Amino acid sequence: MRIRLDIAYDGTHFRGWARQPTLRTVQGELEEALARIVGGSPRLIVAGRTDAGVHASGQVAHLDLDEAQVARLPRRRRDDDETDAVAALAGRVRGVLGLYPDVTVRRTSRAPEGFDARFSAVWRRYAYRLADATTAYDPLDRLRTTSLRSVLDVEAMDAAASRLIGLHDFAAYCKAREEATTIRTLLEYDWRRGDDGVLVANVRADAFCHSMVRALVGACVAVGEGRIAVDDVVAIRDARLRIPETKVLAARGLVLAEVGYPADELLAARAEQTRNRRDAADSAS
Amino acid sequence: MRIRLDIAYDGTHFRGWARQPTLRTVQGELEEALARIVGGSPRLIVAGRTDAGVHASGQVAHLDLDEAQVARLPRRRRDDDETDAVAALAGRVRGVLGLYPDVTVRRTSRAPEGFDARFSAVWRRYAYRLADATTAYDPLDRLRTTSLRSVLDVEAMDAAASRLIGLHDFAAYCKAREEATTIRTLLEYDWRRGDDGVLVANVRADAFCHSMVRALVGACVAVGEGRIAVDDVVAIRDARLRIPETKVLAARGLVLAEVGYPADELLAARAEQTRNRRDAADSAS
Repeated sequence: MRIRLDIAYDGTHFRGWARQPTLRTVQGELEEALARIVGGSPRLIVAGRTDAGVHASGQVAHLDLDEAQVARLPRRRRDDDETDAVAALAGRVRGVLGLYPDVTVRRTSRAPEGFDARFSAVWRRYAYRLADATTAYDPLDRLRTTSLRSVLDVEAMDAAASRLIGLHDFAAYCKAREEATTIRTLLEYDWRRGDDGVLVANVRADAFCHSMVRALVGACVAVGEGRIAVDDVVAIRDARLRIPETKVLAARGLVLAEVGYPADELLAARAEQTRNRRDAADSAS
Repeated sequence: MRIRLDIAYDGTHFRGWARQPTLRTVQGELEEALARIVGGSPRLIVAGRTDAGVHASGQVAHLDLDEAQVARLPRRRRDDDETDAVAALAGRVRGVLGLYPDVTVRRTSRAPEGFDARFSAVWRRYAYRLADATTAYDPLDRLRTTSLRSVLDVEAMDAAASRLIGLHDFAAYCKAREEATTIRTLLEYDWRRGDDGVLVANVRADAFCHSMVRALVGACVAVGEGRIAVDDVVAIRDARLRIPETKVLAARGLVLAEVGYPADELLAARAEQTRNRRDAADSAS
């Protein structure tokens, strides 16, 4: 049986999502909690493998349970069926994680036919929070906000962001990794300054290559500081070269906010499509 | 010269405001930073002496500087006058506190004639954030939100809160301390549930006795959980007895949000008024 998990975490004290032998990671922490409940070696497949320090409010993962593990799902009442038992799993995980943990499972539900947290996802949305010299520093928000000493021109940043939208090769805004495509569809990218003076970016794409959100943020910061012009962010993208003016900004301000999936009845078709694309990519490499 | 400081902090890792020999406190941390800038032994007088773990977004303190200390105030430009130098002090303190500190000085300004951060204050406003079983737990807000396992009836809590408003003896909602009056004017007290499902209390009074905000919150939680009736909060207050049903809630959810002062031209009259009241209190005890 496949289970969908909706997950939130403060990434500050995690070395990222992906399990690593001796380091504290979100995946490691959750798999350990799940093992205590259902036994065996639960393995989570996730929509967004966030880097060290990156937060999530809307992360999604899935988990396959064998019959023995399904039998160990928590039943709160004698007549609970499997759907009730799956829903109760989130509460049991929270019980294991304790009071005020930095990671939580908000919801567990039976995954619809054909659902895969990673390959079914059709888009990911991130938010980035940035304070500049005009923002009142809030100690209670310091773990989720990057602070800069400059004064940022948010209108220029928003103008630059809107020009990056569309299907493009984002190699200039990706950390080079072998075999990974840098061609992505940037669906939304905008900047606004909130009532509290914090600048917030909203970034949505079909998928992101490594460090892409933080490099896109860095490019717009260079615009906001007047170091490059609004149109330069497009010129840099189309030159497909990383330049020193656009830094990758700190993980501190970044939150994976939401993952989009097709309607349940389209999941099987989506799985077929993804499989074909992966096969084509395998034979091409 | 008297300086007003506007201060914010995450109280999680502080043993409260008041300086203590070997413990980390907000006052101790700030006085040490100030001493590094102006020399001597700067002493802060504060509007609200918050307990261990309590946060602040709008704390106010004052500081008296002697001539030697005034001469050491930071001057950014050669022709800066004393007002500029006082304004620049906040930035210098932030520089000493480093990047992403859990306490900050938002603003320093020359105090108007007759201003006393503690005795001029005419009201204090606190906020309390509470998550119940229906609230999605947010790991990034865990330091400023108290979580309960029950489901709270926010309408009943708000109704109870409104009945407590006015000039009363709040001994039932105060930790007993010798010589301290428990007669206070509760100016505002209301509860609402925000879009994120978190319950937020707004509490404003001329002054609070020890643990009063958290006891008032505890009384309304007892109402919200159905353990006592709406009218019981008034009966408890008027009986002037602490009862076990109303607990003092955790410091975690509490923030000192704002301190109110009279207009500058009324400060001298306010000081006279406070002095007379203190003299009367001294001769009465």
